[in-house]
Amino acid sequence: MTFDLIVRGTAVLPDGPLEKAWIAVSDGRIAAIGTGEAPPAHTLHDAGDGLILPGIIDGQTHACSYGGLPGIRSTTRSAVAGGITTIVDMPYDNPAPLNTPARLSEKVEAIHAHAHAHVALYGTILPGQAPDDVQPLIDGGVVAFKISTFESSPTRFPRIASDQILGLFSALADSVLPLGVHNEDQEIVRAYIAAARAAGHNGIEAHSASRPPAAELAATAQFLELGASAGAHAHIVHLTTARGFQLVDNYLADGFRATGELCVHYLWFDPERDGKALGARMKVNPPIRPGQIDALWEEILAGRVAFVSSDHSSWPIDNKLTDSIFDAGAGVPGLETLLPAFFTAAEARGLDAPALTVEQLCERPAKFFGLWPQKGAIRVGADADLTVIARTPQVWDSARAHDELRWSPFDGRTFSITVARTYLEGQLAFDGQDVVNQPGDGRYVRRGQSHWFE
Amino acid sequence: MTFDLIVRGTAVLPDGPLEKAWIAVSDGRIAAIGTGEAPPAHTLHDAGDGLILPGIIDGQTHACSYGGLPGIRSTTRSAVAGGITTIVDMPYDNPAPLNTPARLSEKVEAIHAHAHAHVALYGTILPGQAPDDVQPLIDGGVVAFKISTFESSPTRFPRIASDQILGLFSALADSVLPLGVHNEDQEIVRAYIAAARAAGHNGIEAHSASRPPAAELAATAQFLELGASAGAHAHIVHLTTARGFQLVDNYLADGFRATGELCVHYLWFDPERDGKALGARMKVNPPIRPGQIDALWEEILAGRVAFVSSDHSSWPIDNKLTDSIFDAGAGVPGLETLLPAFFTAAEARGLDAPALTVEQLCERPAKFFGLWPQKGAIRVGADADLTVIARTPQVWDSARAHDELRWSPFDGRTFSITVARTYLEGQLAFDGQDVVNQPGDGRYVRRGQSHWFE
Amino acid sequence: MTFDLIVRGTAVLPDGPLEKAWIAVSDGRIAAIGTGEAPPAHTLHDAGDGLILPGIIDGQTHACSYGGLPGIRSTTRSAVAGGITTIVDMPYDNPAPLNTPARLSEKVEAIHAHAHAHVALYGTILPGQAPDDVQPLIDGGVVAFKISTFESSPTRFPRIASDQILGLFSALADSVLPLGVHNEDQEIVRAYIAAARAAGHNGIEAHSASRPPAAELAATAQFLELGASAGAHAHIVHLTTARGFQLVDNYLADGFRATGELCVHYLWFDPERDGKALGARMKVNPPIRPGQIDALWEEILAGRVAFVSSDHSSWPIDNKLTDSIFDAGAGVPGLETLLPAFFTAAEARGLDAPALTVEQLCERPAKFFGLWPQKGAIRVGADADLTVIARTPQVWDSARAHDELRWSPFDGRTFSITVARTYLEGQLAFDGQDVVNQPGDGRYVRRGQSHWFE
Amino acid sequence: MTFDLIVRGTAVLPDGPLEKAWIAVSDGRIAAIGTGEAPPAHTLHDAGDGLILPGIIDGQTHACSYGGLPGIRSTTRSAVAGGITTIVDMPYDNPAPLNTPARLSEKVEAIHAHAHAHVALYGTILPGQAPDDVQPLIDGGVVAFKISTFESSPTRFPRIASDQILGLFSALADSVLPLGVHNEDQEIVRAYIAAARAAGHNGIEAHSASRPPAAELAATAQFLELGASAGAHAHIVHLTTARGFQLVDNYLADGFRATGELCVHYLWFDPERDGKALGARMKVNPPIRPGQIDALWEEILAGRVAFVSSDHSSWPIDNKLTDSIFDAGAGVPGLETLLPAFFTAAEARGLDAPALTVEQLCERPAKFFGLWPQKGAIRVGADADLTVIARTPQVWDSARAHDELRWSPFDGRTFSITVARTYLEGQLAFDGQDVVNQPGDGRYVRRGQSHWFE
Repeated sequence: MTFDLIVRGTAVLPDGPLEKAWIAVSDGRIAAIGTGEAPPAHTLHDAGDGLILPGIIDGQTHACSYGGLPGIRSTTRSAVAGGITTIVDMPYDNPAPLNTPARLSEKVEAIHAHAHAHVALYGTILPGQAPDDVQPLIDGGVVAFKISTFESSPTRFPRIASDQILGLFSALADSVLPLGVHNEDQEIVRAYIAAARAAGHNGIEAHSASRPPAAELAATAQFLELGASAGAHAHIVHLTTARGFQLVDNYLADGFRATGELCVHYLWFDPERDGKALGARMKVNPPIRPGQIDALWEEILAGRVAFVSSDHSSWPIDNKLTDSIFDAGAGVPGLETLLPAFFTAAEARGLDAPALTVEQLCERPAKFFGLWPQKGAIRVGADADLTVIARTPQVWDSARAHDELRWSPFDGRTFSITVARTYLEGQLAFDGQDVVNQPGDGRYVRRGQSHWFE
Repeated sequence: MTFDLIVRGTAVLPDGPLEKAWIAVSDGRIAAIGTGEAPPAHTLHDAGDGLILPGIIDGQTHACSYGGLPGIRSTTRSAVAGGITTIVDMPYDNPAPLNTPARLSEKVEAIHAHAHAHVALYGTILPGQAPDDVQPLIDGGVVAFKISTFESSPTRFPRIASDQILGLFSALADSVLPLGVHNEDQEIVRAYIAAARAAGHNGIEAHSASRPPAAELAATAQFLELGASAGAHAHIVHLTTARGFQLVDNYLADGFRATGELCVHYLWFDPERDGKALGARMKVNPPIRPGQIDALWEEILAGRVAFVSSDHSSWPIDNKLTDSIFDAGAGVPGLETLLPAFFTAAEARGLDAPALTVEQLCERPAKFFGLWPQKGAIRVGADADLTVIARTPQVWDSARAHDELRWSPFDGRTFSITVARTYLEGQLAFDGQDVVNQPGDGRYVRRGQSHWFE
Repeated sequence: MTFDLIVRGTAVLPDGPLEKAWIAVSDGRIAAIGTGEAPPAHTLHDAGDGLILPGIIDGQTHACSYGGLPGIRSTTRSAVAGGITTIVDMPYDNPAPLNTPARLSEKVEAIHAHAHAHVALYGTILPGQAPDDVQPLIDGGVVAFKISTFESSPTRFPRIASDQILGLFSALADSVLPLGVHNEDQEIVRAYIAAARAAGHNGIEAHSASRPPAAELAATAQFLELGASAGAHAHIVHLTTARGFQLVDNYLADGFRATGELCVHYLWFDPERDGKALGARMKVNPPIRPGQIDALWEEILAGRVAFVSSDHSSWPIDNKLTDSIFDAGAGVPGLETLLPAFFTAAEARGLDAPALTVEQLCERPAKFFGLWPQKGAIRVGADADLTVIARTPQVWDSARAHDELRWSPFDGRTFSITVARTYLEGQLAFDGQDVVNQPGDGRYVRRGQSHWFE
Repeated sequence: MTFDLIVRGTAVLPDGPLEKAWIAVSDGRIAAIGTGEAPPAHTLHDAGDGLILPGIIDGQTHACSYGGLPGIRSTTRSAVAGGITTIVDMPYDNPAPLNTPARLSEKVEAIHAHAHAHVALYGTILPGQAPDDVQPLIDGGVVAFKISTFESSPTRFPRIASDQILGLFSALADSVLPLGVHNEDQEIVRAYIAAARAAGHNGIEAHSASRPPAAELAATAQFLELGASAGAHAHIVHLTTARGFQLVDNYLADGFRATGELCVHYLWFDPERDGKALGARMKVNPPIRPGQIDALWEEILAGRVAFVSSDHSSWPIDNKLTDSIFDAGAGVPGLETLLPAFFTAAEARGLDAPALTVEQLCERPAKFFGLWPQKGAIRVGADADLTVIARTPQVWDSARAHDELRWSPFDGRTFSITVARTYLEGQLAFDGQDVVNQPGDGRYVRRGQSHWFE
């Protein structure tokens, strides 16, 4: 027989690296894995001493916050250039969020029109909206829901009141879908920002204090308890301190379904060290805290982090160049830096970077969002979403990125690897230089059977 | 030498009962404890086979919610008739709460004028009030602070926003004073009551569901985490489910200062069994839950309940006789039933009622509010606040009570004991029939040196 | 390219079953795993709906207790007929144990002459023997050491005194090799047997009481503590009660290296149910206990059992047909029943029998004895030791077995599967009817790099 | 009324010190405790600023190992001079141990003839002795049983085999009496001593290594498991390392009855620091270990030490002056140093020495041996066994001791307190200089109702 595609290199399999491996693809799926001489194939790519990873899954992307549904195009172009084959997109689309089956249909249509990468979707609800649309959205394939306890935008990203959170948790209690939360207490944040402004504080150094850990943790604690009361799966989409993960762990120990997620910038930046140079370029919410990096890695190694994501936002740099940090937009572009940044940081700490990368950026998000075992691992029968990385160091330069934003907090940082190739279901999407697949080659990915809790 | 007073009977000492004991009093303090023949004294009372307990401390009284500061008079009269020698009074006085040194002075003056029992005081803050008065109030002797996450009255009992709770916790972090909370999430309660009203629910059976455990627990979780963030002692003044105490316990296990309190009505009533007969007479907030009594006793026996209190409110019965449960006032009179109800219930479960009563109604509140070792135990050197109980069963009849309210949820219930005598610092306050001491014989009690956490 | 061999069927891979799979073998190793149409091969075997497992590893075999080193021939013939590709052989050879490099050489030579299956080896020491030979034996490739706290034979299977155990543990402390123990307290066993004999007890029902759990557990506790003191890996080769595994778990929790093993007969037989029918046919030491089967399965599911083995002994039936149970030999033949008995029992409990079988009979013993990743899993690059089972039920009949012993405690029991084929490094060893490879086709397997504790 | 005796001073009551206290005694019991002016008494002793403690209880004394039953006289004389009002005497009397009711009667008679202090008794069994005498000894009032796993004397202090230990535990399983053990593995100790002698090691520095922690811990582990198997209370009479207490704690956590005891010399001496000066004067078994003092204090503070005792032995110094450490007797005199040494060491570590002394030397041994609440605390109704200590520092000089032995490992050490007075049931036994009561004034104390486990 002749396979469609063979990729050769060191394959990072679930139980470890296999050197001189070949991955054979037929009909978009992995048909065979072997070592030694490879069988015949129509196309062969030899990655040499490069690593073949399962396609990276970014569990937290904001593709449409800025440019609306067409934002899927540039966002997924950037994704495949970053080795990401699937994004899980947040619901806070511009001008209105994904909160009804009709909006879901529009977004799925936009994916068909624009996507270079696969796209799975979060849903949400608006203030005052009854949970009647929850089940239709589940039937439509959304992988999770998300709300916020802080109003970032009254129409697109509103605060949801406690009673409505409780109602949504109740509507989800019999399902395996998590309800995620942007976890900041609005009263504390608004009062503290007002006080900081009144005191004339304007710089990034005032950002963490203006949205203190207490604001994040109080919202987290309240949300976890609401989820526990309803018997649903509560998910914190970003925790910035070890205390946050301890809180989540207490709920697990008490028999409830609770998880917490990290974003890669919390593992790289420290406002005390980097704030002066980066300013609003490192403004995210909840803020990056001083002195937390080591503690957060400990949480990863202890298995208490559900997975690591990018929280990618497509803000133009103008949005950041404000007089006051409080006027700057929050969020950073991150799809092309997620994989190299995570891998590099793990390696720098002496950890097994390939294994940890596959665990945190592939297996865990796949299982979490119901995409396993079709995605998340190199195994026979799985989708042939593959990411090849070369052990070629690079200094990050956002001017060469594919997101058209031309700025990044990682500019000038050295990564130990380079994304060499990205395949979607056996089709080449990125060749190391250019995005070579077409808008619409990415698919809409519905939630499947896997789930996080037994 | 000749002592001022000798009381004979079975004394419940910290390490157990001492039969044929005598307690000798000089200058208002316990000067000696002995057995056998007693030394000479100016006054002798032989309680026969009655039990001599340390004076009961009610850790949660609302003396002035209805009648203002003069309410201290009838409230403390009822207290000593109930064997209670010290009340810890809540700050929500009518028409305005205890939130400044000036108000503290007024209340202390009112104690001097009216009190039959000793009175210790909680302080509070109002919305928008800076924490500047916290230290002066501590200097003035308040034993604790309290706020609410639910507005019961806009002026007297307002909701305090998260940022202000955090500020108050921070102001208390270096002190041993707890910050207590009335723990109900306002958004959930208001939405659920509106829904219940809309659905035409009016009876007590709708009360618990209208303020569901989730509302109580979400507020509890948020408050505990704010206290933990600030490093202060967070205290939940009433938890109605075992889950609440588990939450508190998690904070202890994580190294924070957290406690939870029970009120005796949660140990006696069940809406499914008693709601029909009692109606609004058993309305308290947070509500008494169905089916929790056994689980709450387990919490007591596991040592996870800080102490048990009455949450006494002096509402006239008119306040309860409304068409809808949602219009009825919350709270019940309880000073004369606290001791016999707790003792009786413990005995009925086969527990060591004397030991448990001394632990939960004397030692623990004394230690908690900084009154130990002067109060809370029969020990040489302590204040001679003594309560004598006779093992004479009684059927409770509020018509005979000393609170002038003439109603009680306990009406018609049988208690296994009767309060026979109450002494304040060696002076007889209640003789089993009548309150025999004078207004002003009770003292203002300032916080002393003891504290709950090492 | 053309592979040497392709086996088709449902392959039980480390992360689950792969249907319509093919395993391609080259040069004795697994060269590729795929699904769908298979590449060309010199030999093809299609197992249909049969399961392809990694070759079974029996972690506890006594090949030479009875027949001396030539016993390897019939024992390994029985092994491959039971789907076992590697046995880990105990050191208590007749007439003298494996305790010196010279003996090791002889035994390796015998393996080369006789073995149908691969053979890994335990070493031991004799009373009074200095630990000087430990390192040479490690250098010679033994995978573990074992001693006994009970004398089964003064020359071949003696009791080792505490001081010598401590010395042996010290000699092993810097290595990854476990020291296993036959764990019975000699004083208790001898005293209790004497008492049982004196009381005229002769039957199997007296066997467990004559070697009570206390005898087993006391020896276990002492041995574990000696291992902990020396900092070495202590392994209990058979635990018959849940308490035994709890003991082991306490050592793990305290930071020491400790493990415990189960044999399949402890999961199948109960003396109260089966004793009358089986008599001495179910006599093993330590004894099978009444009422333990459910509890032992719980230990397996909790992950507290290192692995499951056969403890195969080649006793002729004459050795069992004695007047008194105390005169009967201990031990049962078990190589051909290990796999079907374990699989059947797991299935009967509603468990995932294929996954559990691969875990307990392949992966775990491979890791434990340093054979991983070459053995224990179907993965590219591993040795092509493969066992094919058909889902054909069978009633066990030892007359058809290949061990020439013609008796088994399992006679008449129904198994849900049948061993269909056994491959050693790609070579067919058993075709479902006959052993088709030659003595000496099995290899001596030295300890490799894997180890149990990180 | 007029009391027999009043003692004034600072009384260390169960809940703390009471200054200017008086203790009134009638009929040998504490009749009253007070402060301020004392009632009339026939005899008054004012201890000034001295501390009044409950009489000290030494939970481990060897009164008759050397001098036989008449040894009670000098031993108890030394006890009262050391502030000890009750000794719990070990059964290993010379020439034969306390293992039958007849021997118990003889020993009780000897107590009546000789004892200056109260005496409670351990019983034991001899090799081969059936447990028939266990119940008669319990009926006769023994407070505990003890055996050894090491033979110190074939007739008086023999090794008891595992089967007999198990039988004794079974005989005690339904009782509250603990079975204590001298916990050393005989095989290891004999082998290691032989090796040490062969290597020419003779000094105290070789002592710990010749009876290594492994020997102690292996015997401990085996003994604890035997107790657990039988469901009885297993007690280790001396543990010399933190690991020992961890082992005991594991049994508690698993739901079994297990305890461990410390002797005061393990808290004072370190062979590396003190061995050269003291030599065999600090030889005890199990040996004092290097570097354990801090860890053992941690165990006390964690509540994992049942109590602290002296392990007093009345060896003449000749028994210590041998050429080889292995020929020297093990054990030290300790009754007069137990209290000052423990108190001084606690104080030197900044601990609350009075509270800790009362806990470890009074309350805990009283509860452990069933003597509570008659002994172990200053409480009304308890026996008036009182020990007065002065805060007068002293340099220990065994020449002034009352044990007639004239040697001590504590010679030249400074204690921060001095024993000023000892009362037995209100009768003065020691006046700070001389023993003033008579042989036979001490009583035989039978086990009462208190027990260690609920």
